[in-house]
Amino acid sequence: MAMAKIIPTFLLRLIALGATISATAVMVTSHDSTTVLNLTFVAKYTNSPTFKYFALTNAIASGYGLTTIFLPSKTSLWRLLLVLDLVILCLLDSSISAALAIGYVGKKGNTQAGWLPICGQVPKFCDHANAALICGFVATIVYFLLVLYSLHSAVNLLTTGKA
Amino acid sequence: MAMAKIIPTFLLRLIALGATISATAVMVTSHDSTTVLNLTFVAKYTNSPTFKYFALTNAIASGYGLTTIFLPSKTSLWRLLLVLDLVILCLLDSSISAALAIGYVGKKGNTQAGWLPICGQVPKFCDHANAALICGFVATIVYFLLVLYSLHSAVNLLTTGKA
Repeated sequence: MAMAKIIPTFLLRLIALGATISATAVMVTSHDSTTVLNLTFVAKYTNSPTFKYFALTNAIASGYGLTTIFLPSKTSLWRLLLVLDLVILCLLDSSISAALAIGYVGKKGNTQAGWLPICGQVPKFCDHANAALICGFVATIVYFLLVLYSLHSAVNLLTTGKA
Repeated sequence: MAMAKIIPTFLLRLIALGATISATAVMVTSHDSTTVLNLTFVAKYTNSPTFKYFALTNAIASGYGLTTIFLPSKTSLWRLLLVLDLVILCLLDSSISAALAIGYVGKKGNTQAGWLPICGQVPKFCDHANAALICGFVATIVYFLLVLYSLHSAVNLLTTGKA
Protein backbone atom coordinates (compact mmCIF):
# COMPACT_ATOMS: atom_id res chain seq x y z
CA MET A 1 0.00 0.00 0.00
CA ALA A 2 2.66 2.47 1.10
CA MET A 3 4.83 1.82 -1.96
CA ALA A 4 1.85 2.02 -4.31
CA LYS A 5 1.08 5.42 -2.83
CA ILE A 6 4.62 6.80 -2.92
CA ILE A 7 5.54 5.73 -6.44
CA PRO A 8 2.79 7.56 -8.42
CA THR A 9 3.31 10.75 -6.36
CA PHE A 10 7.06 10.54 -6.93
CA LEU A 11 6.55 9.83 -10.63
CA LEU A 12 4.08 12.71 -11.01
CA ARG A 13 6.48 15.09 -9.25
CA LEU A 14 9.32 13.92 -11.52
CA ILE A 15 7.24 14.50 -14.69
CA ALA A 16 6.09 17.91 -13.41
CA LEU A 17 9.68 18.89 -12.61
CA GLY A 18 10.84 17.90 -16.10
CA ALA A 19 7.96 19.78 -17.70
CA THR A 20 8.46 23.02 -15.73
CA ILE A 21 12.24 23.02 -16.29
CA SER A 22 11.70 22.43 -20.03
CA ALA A 23 9.02 25.14 -20.20
CA THR A 24 11.32 27.66 -18.50
CA ALA A 25 14.38 26.76 -20.60
CA VAL A 26 12.54 26.70 -23.94
CA MET A 27 10.75 30.00 -23.22
CA VAL A 28 13.93 31.78 -22.03
CA THR A 29 15.90 30.70 -25.10
CA SER A 30 13.16 31.75 -27.56
CA HIS A 31 14.66 34.30 -29.93
CA ASP A 32 14.18 35.30 -33.54
CA SER A 33 14.62 38.40 -35.63
CA THR A 34 13.36 39.71 -38.92
CA THR A 35 14.34 42.66 -41.08
CA VAL A 36 11.62 44.81 -42.59
CA LEU A 37 12.73 47.82 -44.69
CA ASN A 38 16.21 47.85 -43.10
CA LEU A 39 14.67 47.83 -39.62
CA THR A 40 15.57 44.78 -37.56
CA PHE A 41 12.81 43.53 -35.34
CA VAL A 42 13.84 41.17 -32.55
CA ALA A 43 11.30 38.82 -30.96
CA LYS A 44 12.14 37.49 -27.54
CA TYR A 45 10.12 36.47 -24.50
CA THR A 46 11.01 39.62 -22.54
CA ASN A 47 9.00 41.68 -25.07
CA SER A 48 5.78 40.40 -23.50
CA PRO A 49 4.98 40.73 -19.79
CA THR A 50 2.85 37.59 -20.15
CA PHE A 51 5.74 35.47 -21.43
CA LYS A 52 7.97 36.87 -18.66
CA TYR A 53 5.29 35.84 -16.13
CA PHE A 54 5.13 32.39 -17.75
CA ALA A 55 8.92 31.91 -17.48
CA LEU A 56 8.98 33.19 -13.87
CA THR A 57 6.08 30.95 -12.78
CA ASN A 58 7.64 27.87 -14.36
CA ALA A 59 10.98 28.72 -12.74
CA ILE A 60 9.26 28.99 -9.33
CA ALA A 61 7.47 25.67 -9.95
CA SER A 62 10.81 24.09 -10.93
CA GLY A 63 12.43 25.27 -7.69
CA TYR A 64 9.47 24.01 -5.69
CA GLY A 65 9.47 20.68 -7.57
CA LEU A 66 13.20 20.23 -6.97
CA THR A 67 12.70 20.80 -3.22
CA THR A 68 9.72 18.46 -2.83
CA ILE A 69 11.28 15.62 -4.78
CA PHE A 70 14.02 15.30 -2.14
CA LEU A 71 11.62 15.35 0.81
CA PRO A 72 11.14 12.00 2.58
CA SER A 73 7.83 10.35 1.73
CA LYS A 74 6.61 10.42 5.33
CA THR A 75 7.16 14.09 6.01
CA SER A 76 5.41 16.04 8.74
CA LEU A 77 5.15 18.89 6.25
CA TRP A 78 2.47 17.15 4.17
CA ARG A 79 -0.21 19.67 5.21
CA LEU A 80 1.98 22.51 3.96
CA LEU A 81 2.75 20.51 0.79
CA LEU A 82 -0.95 20.07 0.08
CA VAL A 83 -1.55 23.84 0.21
CA LEU A 84 1.65 24.65 -1.71
CA ASP A 85 0.73 22.12 -4.44
CA LEU A 86 -2.59 23.94 -4.78
CA VAL A 87 -0.84 27.34 -4.98
CA ILE A 88 1.59 26.06 -7.64
CA LEU A 89 -1.33 24.56 -9.59
CA CYS A 90 -3.08 27.96 -9.58
CA LEU A 91 0.12 29.76 -10.65
CA LEU A 92 0.83 27.31 -13.50
CA ASP A 93 -2.82 27.34 -14.63
CA SER A 94 -2.79 31.13 -14.65
CA SER A 95 0.52 31.42 -16.55
CA ILE A 96 -0.36 28.86 -19.23
CA SER A 97 -3.77 30.46 -19.82
CA ALA A 98 -2.34 33.95 -20.14
CA ALA A 99 0.48 32.76 -22.41
CA LEU A 100 -1.98 30.78 -24.57
CA ALA A 101 -4.19 33.87 -24.97
CA ILE A 102 -1.21 35.99 -26.10
CA GLY A 103 0.17 33.16 -28.24
CA TYR A 104 -3.19 32.88 -30.00
CA VAL A 105 -3.12 36.59 -30.89
CA GLY A 106 0.49 36.15 -32.07
CA LYS A 107 -0.57 33.31 -34.36
CA LYS A 108 -3.98 34.47 -35.60
CA GLY A 109 -3.98 38.19 -34.82
CA ASN A 110 -7.19 40.04 -34.01
CA THR A 111 -8.78 41.78 -36.98
CA GLN A 112 -11.22 43.91 -34.95
CA ALA A 113 -8.46 45.29 -32.72
CA GLY A 114 -6.10 45.73 -35.68
CA TRP A 115 -3.49 43.40 -34.17
CA LEU A 116 -1.63 41.54 -36.91
CA PRO A 117 -0.25 38.02 -36.45
CA ILE A 118 3.52 37.96 -36.05
CA CYS A 119 4.34 34.25 -36.39
CA GLY A 120 4.90 34.58 -40.15
CA GLN A 121 7.76 37.04 -39.48
CA VAL A 122 9.37 35.28 -36.54
CA PRO A 123 8.62 31.55 -36.98
CA LYS A 124 11.52 30.37 -34.80
CA PHE A 125 10.23 32.45 -31.88
CA CYS A 126 6.74 31.04 -32.32
CA ASP A 127 8.01 27.45 -32.47
CA HIS A 128 9.87 27.98 -29.20
CA ALA A 129 6.86 29.61 -27.55
CA ASN A 130 4.65 26.74 -28.79
CA ALA A 131 6.98 24.11 -27.33
CA ALA A 132 7.16 26.01 -24.02
CA LEU A 133 3.35 26.20 -23.89
CA ILE A 134 3.05 22.44 -24.43
CA CYS A 135 5.50 21.79 -21.56
CA GLY A 136 3.64 24.28 -19.35
CA PHE A 137 0.35 22.57 -20.19
CA VAL A 138 1.73 19.15 -19.23
CA ALA A 139 3.03 20.60 -15.94
CA THR A 140 -0.39 22.10 -15.14
CA ILE A 141 -2.21 18.81 -15.81
CA VAL A 142 0.29 16.91 -13.65
CA TYR A 143 -0.11 19.34 -10.72
CA PHE A 144 -3.88 19.02 -11.09
CA LEU A 145 -3.51 15.22 -10.80
CA LEU A 146 -1.19 15.65 -7.78
CA VAL A 147 -3.77 17.79 -5.96
CA LEU A 148 -6.58 15.36 -6.90
CA TYR A 149 -4.44 12.46 -5.68
CA SER A 150 -3.79 14.19 -2.32
CA LEU A 151 -7.50 14.95 -1.99
CA HIS A 152 -8.35 11.34 -2.78
CA SER A 153 -5.96 10.05 -0.11
CA ALA A 154 -7.29 12.53 2.46
CA VAL A 155 -10.91 11.66 1.66
CA ASN A 156 -10.19 7.91 1.74
CA LEU A 157 -8.65 8.25 5.18
CA LEU A 158 -11.64 10.31 6.23
CA THR A 159 -14.30 7.87 5.11
CA THR A 160 -12.75 4.43 5.49
CA GLY A 161 -10.00 5.06 8.03
CA LYS A 162 -7.36 3.67 5.70
CA ALA A 163 -5.36 5.29 2.96
CA MET B 1 -19.22 23.79 15.55
CA ALA B 2 -21.58 22.76 12.74
CA MET B 3 -23.04 26.26 12.35
CA ALA B 4 -19.61 27.87 12.42
CA LYS B 5 -18.65 25.56 9.59
CA ILE B 6 -21.75 26.01 7.47
CA ILE B 7 -22.01 29.78 7.64
CA PRO B 8 -18.63 30.75 6.15
CA THR B 9 -19.01 28.15 3.36
CA PHE B 10 -22.49 29.44 2.59
CA LEU B 11 -21.30 33.05 2.70
CA LEU B 12 -18.33 32.27 0.45
CA ARG B 13 -20.60 30.49 -2.05
CA LEU B 14 -22.99 33.44 -2.00
CA ILE B 15 -20.18 35.95 -2.67
CA ALA B 16 -18.75 33.73 -5.42
CA LEU B 17 -22.18 33.40 -7.04
CA GLY B 18 -22.67 37.18 -7.01
CA ALA B 19 -19.21 37.74 -8.45
CA THR B 20 -19.54 35.20 -11.28
CA ILE B 21 -23.03 36.44 -12.26
CA SER B 22 -21.77 40.05 -12.27
CA ALA B 23 -18.67 39.09 -14.27
CA THR B 24 -20.78 37.32 -16.90
CA ALA B 25 -23.40 40.08 -17.12
CA VAL B 26 -20.88 42.95 -17.28
CA MET B 27 -18.74 41.16 -19.88
CA VAL B 28 -21.70 40.20 -22.08
CA THR B 29 -23.10 43.76 -22.07
CA SER B 30 -19.73 45.37 -22.90
CA HIS B 31 -20.16 47.30 -26.12
CA ASP B 32 -18.68 50.45 -27.63
CA SER B 33 -18.05 51.81 -31.09
CA THR B 34 -15.83 54.40 -32.64
CA THR B 35 -15.70 55.98 -36.08
CA VAL B 36 -12.35 56.43 -37.79
CA LEU B 37 -12.34 57.93 -41.30
CA ASN B 38 -16.05 57.06 -41.84
CA LEU B 39 -15.40 53.47 -40.83
CA THR B 40 -17.32 52.38 -37.75
CA PHE B 41 -15.40 50.03 -35.50
CA VAL B 42 -17.48 48.10 -32.97
CA ALA B 43 -15.86 46.65 -29.85
CA LYS B 44 -17.69 43.82 -28.14
CA TYR B 45 -16.65 40.78 -26.15
CA THR B 46 -17.36 38.36 -29.00
CA ASN B 47 -14.49 39.92 -30.98
CA SER B 48 -12.00 38.15 -28.73
CA PRO B 49 -12.02 34.38 -28.18
CA THR B 50 -10.48 35.04 -24.76
CA PHE B 51 -13.34 37.27 -23.62
CA LYS B 52 -15.85 34.71 -24.95
CA TYR B 53 -14.05 32.04 -22.91
CA PHE B 54 -14.17 34.36 -19.87
CA ALA B 55 -17.94 34.91 -20.21
CA LEU B 56 -18.57 31.18 -20.77
CA THR B 57 -16.47 30.12 -17.77
CA ASN B 58 -18.18 32.62 -15.47
CA ALA B 59 -21.60 31.48 -16.75
CA ILE B 60 -20.67 27.86 -15.97
CA ALA B 61 -19.43 28.88 -12.51
CA SER B 62 -22.69 30.79 -11.94
CA GLY B 63 -24.76 27.73 -12.83
CA TYR B 64 -22.62 25.57 -10.59
CA GLY B 65 -22.81 28.14 -7.76
CA LEU B 66 -26.58 28.34 -8.06
CA THR B 67 -26.86 24.54 -7.80
CA THR B 68 -24.53 24.17 -4.81
CA ILE B 69 -26.12 26.97 -2.80
CA PHE B 70 -29.39 25.02 -2.62
CA LEU B 71 -27.74 21.75 -1.58
CA PRO B 72 -28.30 20.75 2.05
CA SER B 73 -25.25 21.36 4.24
CA LYS B 74 -24.90 17.65 5.11
CA THR B 75 -24.90 16.28 1.60
CA SER B 76 -23.49 12.90 0.65
CA LEU B 77 -22.15 14.57 -2.50
CA TRP B 78 -19.45 16.47 -0.59
CA ARG B 79 -16.68 14.41 -2.18
CA LEU B 80 -17.93 15.31 -5.63
CA LEU B 81 -18.32 18.96 -4.52
CA LEU B 82 -14.69 19.06 -3.37
CA VAL B 83 -13.46 17.96 -6.80
CA LEU B 84 -15.93 20.20 -8.68
CA ASP B 85 -14.89 23.21 -6.56
CA LEU B 86 -11.30 22.51 -7.61
CA VAL B 87 -12.30 22.24 -11.29
CA ILE B 88 -14.26 25.51 -11.11
CA LEU B 89 -11.29 27.18 -9.38
CA CYS B 90 -9.00 26.07 -12.22
CA LEU B 91 -11.48 27.27 -14.89
CA LEU B 92 -11.96 30.69 -13.24
CA ASP B 93 -8.21 31.09 -12.64
CA SER B 94 -7.53 30.24 -16.27
CA SER B 95 -10.20 32.59 -17.66
CA ILE B 96 -9.24 35.58 -15.50
CA SER B 97 -5.54 35.16 -16.37
CA ALA B 98 -6.20 34.92 -20.10
CA ALA B 99 -8.59 37.89 -20.03
CA LEU B 100 -6.10 39.95 -17.98
CA ALA B 101 -3.33 39.22 -20.50
CA ILE B 102 -5.53 40.35 -23.42
CA GLY B 103 -6.89 43.31 -21.43
CA TYR B 104 -3.33 44.44 -20.72
CA VAL B 105 -2.50 44.44 -24.45
CA GLY B 106 -5.75 46.33 -25.08
CA LYS B 107 -4.74 48.97 -22.54
CA LYS B 108 -0.98 49.27 -23.10
CA GLY B 109 -0.48 47.67 -26.51
CA ASN B 110 2.74 45.88 -27.39
CA THR B 111 5.25 48.02 -29.25
CA GLN B 112 7.51 45.16 -30.35
CA ALA B 113 4.61 43.22 -31.88
CA GLY B 114 3.12 46.38 -33.39
CA TRP B 115 -0.15 45.94 -31.47
CA LEU B 116 -1.65 49.35 -30.64
CA PRO B 117 -3.71 49.96 -27.48
CA ILE B 118 -7.43 50.28 -28.22
CA CYS B 119 -8.81 51.62 -24.92
CA GLY B 120 -8.41 55.24 -26.06
CA GLN B 121 -10.85 54.57 -28.94
CA VAL B 122 -13.40 52.46 -27.08
CA PRO B 123 -13.26 53.61 -23.42
CA LYS B 124 -16.76 52.31 -22.55
CA PHE B 125 -15.82 48.81 -23.72
CA CYS B 126 -12.63 48.92 -21.66
CA ASP B 127 -14.47 50.10 -18.53
CA HIS B 128 -16.90 47.20 -18.85
CA ALA B 129 -14.11 44.70 -19.43
CA ASN B 130 -12.24 46.14 -16.42
CA ALA B 131 -15.28 45.76 -14.15
CA ALA B 132 -15.86 42.20 -15.39
CA LEU B 133 -12.21 41.35 -14.70
CA ILE B 134 -12.48 42.67 -11.13
CA CYS B 135 -15.61 40.51 -10.53
CA GLY B 136 -13.87 37.49 -12.07
CA PHE B 137 -10.85 38.08 -9.85
CA VAL B 138 -13.03 38.20 -6.71
CA ALA B 139 -14.75 34.96 -7.78
CA THR B 140 -11.38 33.24 -8.29
CA ILE B 141 -10.10 34.31 -4.85
CA VAL B 142 -13.35 33.13 -3.19
CA TYR B 143 -13.18 29.71 -4.88
CA PHE B 144 -9.53 29.44 -3.79
CA LEU B 145 -10.67 30.10 -0.19
CA LEU B 146 -13.50 27.54 -0.56
CA VAL B 147 -11.05 24.84 -1.68
CA LEU B 148 -8.59 25.80 1.11
CA TYR B 149 -11.45 25.67 3.62
CA SER B 150 -12.53 22.20 2.46
CA LEU B 151 -8.91 21.03 2.63
CA HIS B 152 -8.60 22.47 6.13
CA SER B 153 -11.73 20.67 7.31
CA ALA B 154 -10.60 17.40 5.75
CA VAL B 155 -7.11 17.68 7.25
CA ASN B 156 -8.51 18.60 10.68
CA LEU B 157 -10.71 15.53 10.65
CA LEU B 158 -7.69 13.51 9.58
CA THR B 159 -5.34 14.68 12.31
CA THR B 160 -7.56 15.41 15.29
CA GLY B 161 -10.66 13.36 14.55
CA LYS B 162 -12.90 16.42 14.83
CA ALA B 163 -13.85 19.02 12.26
